[in-house]
Amino acid sequence: MQVGFAGLGNMGFAMAANLVRAGHAVKAWNRSKEPVARLIALGGQAASSPAEAAQAEVLITMLADDASTRSILDEGGALAQLKPGAIHVCMATVSVAFAKEMTARHAEKGVGYIAAPVLGRVNVAEAGQLNILAAGDSGLIDRVQPLFDAMGQKTWRFGSQPERANAVKLAANFMLVSAIESMAEASAMVAGHGVAPADFLAMATSTAFAAPVYKIYGEAMVQERFEPAGFKLALGLKDIRLALEAAEAARAPMPFASTLKDNLLDGVAHGEGDLDLAALSRVAARRAGKG
Amino acid sequence: MQVGFAGLGNMGFAMAANLVRAGHAVKAWNRSKEPVARLIALGGQAASSPAEAAQAEVLITMLADDASTRSILDEGGALAQLKPGAIHVCMATVSVAFAKEMTARHAEKGVGYIAAPVLGRVNVAEAGQLNILAAGDSGLIDRVQPLFDAMGQKTWRFGSQPERANAVKLAANFMLVSAIESMAEASAMVAGHGVAPADFLAMATSTAFAAPVYKIYGEAMVQERFEPAGFKLALGLKDIRLALEAAEAARAPMPFASTLKDNLLDGVAHGEGDLDLAALSRVAARRAGKG
Amino acid sequence: MQVGFAGLGNMGFAMAANLVRAGHAVKAWNRSKEPVARLIALGGQAASSPAEAAQAEVLITMLADDASTRSILDEGGALAQLKPGAIHVCMATVSVAFAKEMTARHAEKGVGYIAAPVLGRVNVAEAGQLNILAAGDSGLIDRVQPLFDAMGQKTWRFGSQPERANAVKLAANFMLVSAIESMAEASAMVAGHGVAPADFLAMATSTAFAAPVYKIYGEAMVQERFEPAGFKLALGLKDIRLALEAAEAARAPMPFASTLKDNLLDGVAHGEGDLDLAALSRVAARRAGKG
Amino acid sequence: MQVGFAGLGNMGFAMAANLVRAGHAVKAWNRSKEPVARLIALGGQAASSPAEAAQAEVLITMLADDASTRSILDEGGALAQLKPGAIHVCMATVSVAFAKEMTARHAEKGVGYIAAPVLGRVNVAEAGQLNILAAGDSGLIDRVQPLFDAMGQKTWRFGSQPERANAVKLAANFMLVSAIESMAEASAMVAGHGVAPADFLAMATSTAFAAPVYKIYGEAMVQERFEPAGFKLALGLKDIRLALEAAEAARAPMPFASTLKDNLLDGVAHGEGDLDLAALSRVAARRAGKG
Repeated sequence: MQVGFAGLGNMGFAMAANLVRAGHAVKAWNRSKEPVARLIALGGQAASSPAEAAQAEVLITMLADDASTRSILDEGGALAQLKPGAIHVCMATVSVAFAKEMTARHAEKGVGYIAAPVLGRVNVAEAGQLNILAAGDSGLIDRVQPLFDAMGQKTWRFGSQPERANAVKLAANFMLVSAIESMAEASAMVAGHGVAPADFLAMATSTAFAAPVYKIYGEAMVQERFEPAGFKLALGLKDIRLALEAAEAARAPMPFASTLKDNLLDGVAHGEGDLDLAALSRVAARRAGKG
Repeated sequence: MQVGFAGLGNMGFAMAANLVRAGHAVKAWNRSKEPVARLIALGGQAASSPAEAAQAEVLITMLADDASTRSILDEGGALAQLKPGAIHVCMATVSVAFAKEMTARHAEKGVGYIAAPVLGRVNVAEAGQLNILAAGDSGLIDRVQPLFDAMGQKTWRFGSQPERANAVKLAANFMLVSAIESMAEASAMVAGHGVAPADFLAMATSTAFAAPVYKIYGEAMVQERFEPAGFKLALGLKDIRLALEAAEAARAPMPFASTLKDNLLDGVAHGEGDLDLAALSRVAARRAGKG
Repeated sequence: MQVGFAGLGNMGFAMAANLVRAGHAVKAWNRSKEPVARLIALGGQAASSPAEAAQAEVLITMLADDASTRSILDEGGALAQLKPGAIHVCMATVSVAFAKEMTARHAEKGVGYIAAPVLGRVNVAEAGQLNILAAGDSGLIDRVQPLFDAMGQKTWRFGSQPERANAVKLAANFMLVSAIESMAEASAMVAGHGVAPADFLAMATSTAFAAPVYKIYGEAMVQERFEPAGFKLALGLKDIRLALEAAEAARAPMPFASTLKDNLLDGVAHGEGDLDLAALSRVAARRAGKG
Repeated sequence: MQVGFAGLGNMGFAMAANLVRAGHAVKAWNRSKEPVARLIALGGQAASSPAEAAQAEVLITMLADDASTRSILDEGGALAQLKPGAIHVCMATVSVAFAKEMTARHAEKGVGYIAAPVLGRVNVAEAGQLNILAAGDSGLIDRVQPLFDAMGQKTWRFGSQPERANAVKLAANFMLVSAIESMAEASAMVAGHGVAPADFLAMATSTAFAAPVYKIYGEAMVQERFEPAGFKLALGLKDIRLALEAAEAARAPMPFASTLKDNLLDGVAHGEGDLDLAALSRVAARRAGKG
């Protein structure tokens, strides 16, 4: 399939590389040129602008947030270049409101819009084992399913309204950050009674909480290994903000999410925004006077 | 080993039965007599009072809370009957403060005190697969280790101060209730955007959150199957209260735990105290106007 | 002074009327025409569009929020019509981010921008007794001070960056909603012990809390008189959202504000958005099972 | 009237002194003897023990908390010495549960029990201008009303169940700490936008929040004058804990109180327990990275 791809960050590059390996014709654009060169080495092509990348059957965007996605669509000219019948698959973690707006703006031009954010860190993306959360017109999703199959182990469909996939992605990230915060608070509490958090977390993540999210972030907490960040605290703050916006639109109070925002903000205020989310343990320890 | 056992609730009975099956001489007391009869059928013996159960090498107590444990020790006469050199193993989920007090009171009498709360629901207890969280004098724990081996798959030791095991147990239960609350809030949010919580939770508990705690409570949430309760909401409230007390003693703010207490209280105020903890989904849905 | 005035809601009308009474030449625009007619009866003039209102020495805007203010400035043509040297005084409760953006956009055109949100309800505005929270270039504020003097009892200046006045206004409204929430929670608690909230609030608002904010909202709570709303719950939600956005920009966790957002959202989800903020008592009572 | 008085702290001394000045025969006990000597200088008498103080028509206790009140009643022998027909007026800020227990225990002995906690700081107590929150049998309150009139400006009655007065007192203290927290958070937010908290608070406490609680604590905040403490942060933590216990008994979620407990605990964990409650501003500033 002819695929334009905008956004070759760590995740985007791994995804685009898997598309190339699966035999798709991928023309990629990225702000910095180094990852584009690496993709060319694998058999991809370079697009000189987002607009050029958009001259394809399918445009996949994997940017950092609403603003950068909007930027390549509007200032970057991608939306203007998308042809009637083309499909834009937005795989970034963007807001529900953004997805609604984009669905409408693409529809006006006869362009399909699919939201397909992903679950999985970079190593999972590299292995083509992402879980893809897709929503949009089912016929359109059927058309891009071969692309999803090259990038992920499974596609989960959430109906015809694209923003639903974004709501689901934000809900999942909220659950992730909640799990981390629960380890952080629990560790601060047991530490206050003389139990090493490492001992507590070793037990907890081997028993009732023997899931990857607890193991990965629990180990980072214990080893205080917050760099390089697998998931930056500042990006966690962004996702929780978007989850709260989605909650407000749905009129659903989310007190855990509210607490998370305050604690992530506390971390950012202490210069921990570029650390891994596991550094929520620092916030909890600092509040307990063990900063 | 000669073992007295007080408290044959669902958990206690399963544990005592495994001791009997492993060949230990178990003399058991329970407020109601029916489970005692069942234990006798397996080869156990009846104690006519907590005091009689305490006339053993080792007394195991598995009562509901601080008050009921205190009751069998004081009014029930068990503490008075424990002989110097005997060991009392308190396996209930009691408070850190209670463990400290009991450690001192037993020591005055030359009786050993071990805290050994457990992780696992009834079916896990029946299978002898509990995780046992033990703290106390290591020589004493060595002595009762054969009993732990008959009841659990693994014993995790947290040092010589008994109350540390209670802090760890409360921290683990806090993490459990947090995981449930995160599913409840996430479900309310996605529902507000038209996604069925069942679809969301099926995905989440098969991917990043593929751990028993999420699967078990997530399924109960989806099926709205809150009775019979695996873990009653009102008991969850008790455990979170104890976690907060332990946190206050440790001067560790636990904002998630504070939120949990408010939400569990909301549930109890709405007559949901006897439902399973999964009914936190009702609290979240009700606040979102979908009560 | 030649004054254009956009936004004759209850507050705006009272303020514009006082300008007319003080002898200023006020040309007013409002979406519905009825209040314009009333102002003409007092000696004011009608502007057929926001753009016409903007053809004055000073343009005062008193709209509901960011979006409606933006609408009259952009689609309504007011910003385009403001002449170099003119001053736009935005007296609405808008966001800090909006104020920053507007400061820059006005400066590009050589137009002064002053933020001057107000404290006080409609009856205070009618009496010309508002407290005006002003920020912006001090020379510009000096020029419009006679207008402020006609509308308010005192002008409080917060420096040369306009958005500071908005931060102050949002902080004050946050304190107001916090005071109401504290009465709501306290009332639910004492009610659970058999004390009539009316008895409790009568005492509290006559002693330590003998301030207008407690008296006014406490009385509405006691009488369950939530309509007509002096300050709509849904507008309170908007203001708390803006306060939280300002807090995030300042990297300042505001856990009370986070809680308020959740509780106000709970109210809106239960159809209470058009009721007075005092209806936070309903949210607290409902959570306590007395809904 | 013959009055025994136990507890001559700053508040207790001022209250007992006013009883003496009003002509009552006051026999006082205090752990340290210095304030007893001062009271004798005013015309009072010394009791050598709580038990001796209890040999009076009316016993007034004004201790720090449940534990110290319990101590003088039980170990101190006061309860045993109270004669049938005597009245014990407990004016301390104790828990609702304690009041219920004491009501029953006094009734068993034919002794009346009145709860009468007070509102007002030391200078108010000295001036005899306290607000007294009384509950208990109305005939009994009538009998001690002359004593209340000597200590306070007004007695507010909350019915015949003594614990109701304690619930009211805790609710009022909760509102007080909430008001302080709202100033702390608001100040941290405006500071992040360049507004001096002093400027913000000067405005707020002169306008909508022109009540003593805001003025007193706001001024302490601005001047960072946290010692000597008018109301110690650690005592605020105690009162909020008691308010939360009362809320749990009433099944009333109090999310503001939960947040306060976490923030007060943060303060105590940072060695601020002996500072004035106004030091909540430090907690808020610290979390915003301005510690």
